[in-house]
Amino acid sequence: MDNLELMRELSQPSPSKIVFFVLDGLGGLPHPKTGKTELETARTPNLDQLATSGICGLAEVVGVGITPGSSAGHLALFGYDPLRFTIGRGVLEAVGIDFNLEPKDIAARGNFCTADEAGLVTDRRAGRISNEKCTELCQLLDSTVIDGVKVLVRPVREHRFVVVFRGGGLNAKVTDSDPQQPGVAPKVVTALEPEATSLADVANKFIGEAKKILAEQYPANMVLLRGFSHRPELPSMADVYKLKPAAIAVYPMYKGLARLIGMEILKTGTNIDGEFVTLRQNYADHDFFFLHVKWLDSAGEDGDFDRKVKVIEEFDRALPRVKGMEPDVLVVTGDHSTPAVLSGHSWHPVPVLLYSKWCRPDGADEFSESACLGGGLGHFPATQIMSLAMAHALKLTKLGA
Amino acid sequence: MDNLELMRELSQPSPSKIVFFVLDGLGGLPHPKTGKTELETARTPNLDQLATSGICGLAEVVGVGITPGSSAGHLALFGYDPLRFTIGRGVLEAVGIDFNLEPKDIAARGNFCTADEAGLVTDRRAGRISNEKCTELCQLLDSTVIDGVKVLVRPVREHRFVVVFRGGGLNAKVTDSDPQQPGVAPKVVTALEPEATSLADVANKFIGEAKKILAEQYPANMVLLRGFSHRPELPSMADVYKLKPAAIAVYPMYKGLARLIGMEILKTGTNIDGEFVTLRQNYADHDFFFLHVKWLDSAGEDGDFDRKVKVIEEFDRALPRVKGMEPDVLVVTGDHSTPAVLSGHSWHPVPVLLYSKWCRPDGADEFSESACLGGGLGHFPATQIMSLAMAHALKLTKLGA
Repeated sequence: MDNLELMRELSQPSPSKIVFFVLDGLGGLPHPKTGKTELETARTPNLDQLATSGICGLAEVVGVGITPGSSAGHLALFGYDPLRFTIGRGVLEAVGIDFNLEPKDIAARGNFCTADEAGLVTDRRAGRISNEKCTELCQLLDSTVIDGVKVLVRPVREHRFVVVFRGGGLNAKVTDSDPQQPGVAPKVVTALEPEATSLADVANKFIGEAKKILAEQYPANMVLLRGFSHRPELPSMADVYKLKPAAIAVYPMYKGLARLIGMEILKTGTNIDGEFVTLRQNYADHDFFFLHVKWLDSAGEDGDFDRKVKVIEEFDRALPRVKGMEPDVLVVTGDHSTPAVLSGHSWHPVPVLLYSKWCRPDGADEFSESACLGGGLGHFPATQIMSLAMAHALKLTKLGA
Repeated sequence: MDNLELMRELSQPSPSKIVFFVLDGLGGLPHPKTGKTELETARTPNLDQLATSGICGLAEVVGVGITPGSSAGHLALFGYDPLRFTIGRGVLEAVGIDFNLEPKDIAARGNFCTADEAGLVTDRRAGRISNEKCTELCQLLDSTVIDGVKVLVRPVREHRFVVVFRGGGLNAKVTDSDPQQPGVAPKVVTALEPEATSLADVANKFIGEAKKILAEQYPANMVLLRGFSHRPELPSMADVYKLKPAAIAVYPMYKGLARLIGMEILKTGTNIDGEFVTLRQNYADHDFFFLHVKWLDSAGEDGDFDRKVKVIEEFDRALPRVKGMEPDVLVVTGDHSTPAVLSGHSWHPVPVLLYSKWCRPDGADEFSESACLGGGLGHFPATQIMSLAMAHALKLTKLGA
């Protein structure tokens, strides 16, 4: 029996509430000068107090040595084994903008990019064009029909868009056109299975037409596609955990993923403060809240150690507001590490803090990677964080007589 | 290869002896006033001395966040994955009273209960009638034949009894009649598979007849049945570990479980002292002893922190007697946690102490949850405790050349 089946068998509804904070890219590595990570550098009196009365540990998100992408990381945090459940990038983007995917649709993530006269990509993000420009360009490309397949194009943010191929019977097993680096030409989309030839053909024709349509739109004069995928079948959190879950997230992908597992997406602002306001306003209506804080990861990806520290401190200052709501279980963790010194996601296990009046305290008296290393939760798989949260919320019955 | 197969391949008989103490519900949570758990509060000089020279750790019994029932917890301790091997409640009760189940028998756990004039259950335990009364009532119900199925009824303790349906070809997939709460009527037993219709019919007829027979037996004027089950196929400890194992336990269920995995059940007294006497008297005849101490769990379930502390201290005082026998390996652990503050089983990992002259010592200088957290065994699955015991008893050959 896998973990989700076990949860489905043992979970029961109850009035207790779980607030689950995901600080995106929380885990870090020491600053070369101080020997302290971002989390260890940040002044976090509220998190430290929670760590003192709660219990800490380190979670392996996907597996030892494995660097999770954002969707894999989040799936693991909600108890879904990311090696078993995979969500294509295209589907994530589509769901994240509230695009209602039909079961046979195939979605791909698109970038507007800049290509030079030789057709080589000079900027994979077309100078991060404005949202308005993105919308305008998507309208130019939208709703063509190629070989009987309708091609829908929708803006996401800046240079990002979604393209959906709707035409029944398409197989999504094709390669990306996005070369993932500048200085080279976009790749030709290629079928990985014979049945995927039609999609590859349609995609290449779409890319060719887009090139013509965008010819005068420098810097956004070309498109790159990646992550062709079908909508996956994921059991809902309501089914697995008997929860009525809600998501508070600013960025589309996280909302999209939350919606895929049945969370209600709450309208929120554009920063941490706005997210906490949303939490308070909706607190009575749900028993599980996923609150996503993106900006640590952005800072880490930019290699900006100090900015990541500041975001952690900003979160810490906001934290007392949730203590006032007195959730039965409070979880603070990350979907992966994004050490500023690596300027990207990494494989390092993520710090986990769980607070509940039923946790067995450990010696951790601050929230940091080093305190978590000796914490009472030990070193454990991230797919079990939800089991712990459910247990401490007294939402699980015992196994067997 | 799973753990049992690995043990079967590597284990070999030897004269060394393992004594395995299960302190039922050993793990705890801090007392709100002192911040110390039951085990941390108890004065345990002998356990502390063993912890100092031995090695400690914390074991996850079934899995992170999962609260084990008694049978699941014990199966795990003996190396049997409780998610793979499940034992119905009825079978456990039957085996626990030395009832010789035939392969096709179906057993259910029964409660005598009190029903009011409207047929609603007012007390699921019929005021915990005496053992004598239970025996008398079972005799009234025993050995009827319904639709060709013989129905055997045997007393357990107080309000508890076993009912065995013997008649070949019955399928055990039926629901309970026990509603698990007072104020409602008993449920009708219902087939979960078409093949189980005959058992459901027989069970409902039996319940109907019992109601008539018990009409004048207030407060025990009705029966509730649950846990209809076949005897499971469990490999024996002799087969897996090449051991000649014996069990010393006072309560039927633990004896029943031990017998299911091939332990010999030793006659013993009714308290810790009696159990240690039994251990000494039979010490020459076996190489593995499971000694079960029930009363911590009972105290924990009653929410009686101080009584649980006292039982731990009583066990500690008895412990030097076993040191005199000089077993090669001594294990002290629990089948789950039963924190008095929760008044019930819980998911918290259980403390484990292993003593042998071959263990690599750690820094633990007392037996407590907090010392175990930093112990040399780390945080590990309870199904591996037997592997450790076997290894330290030098009963396992190496893997491969």
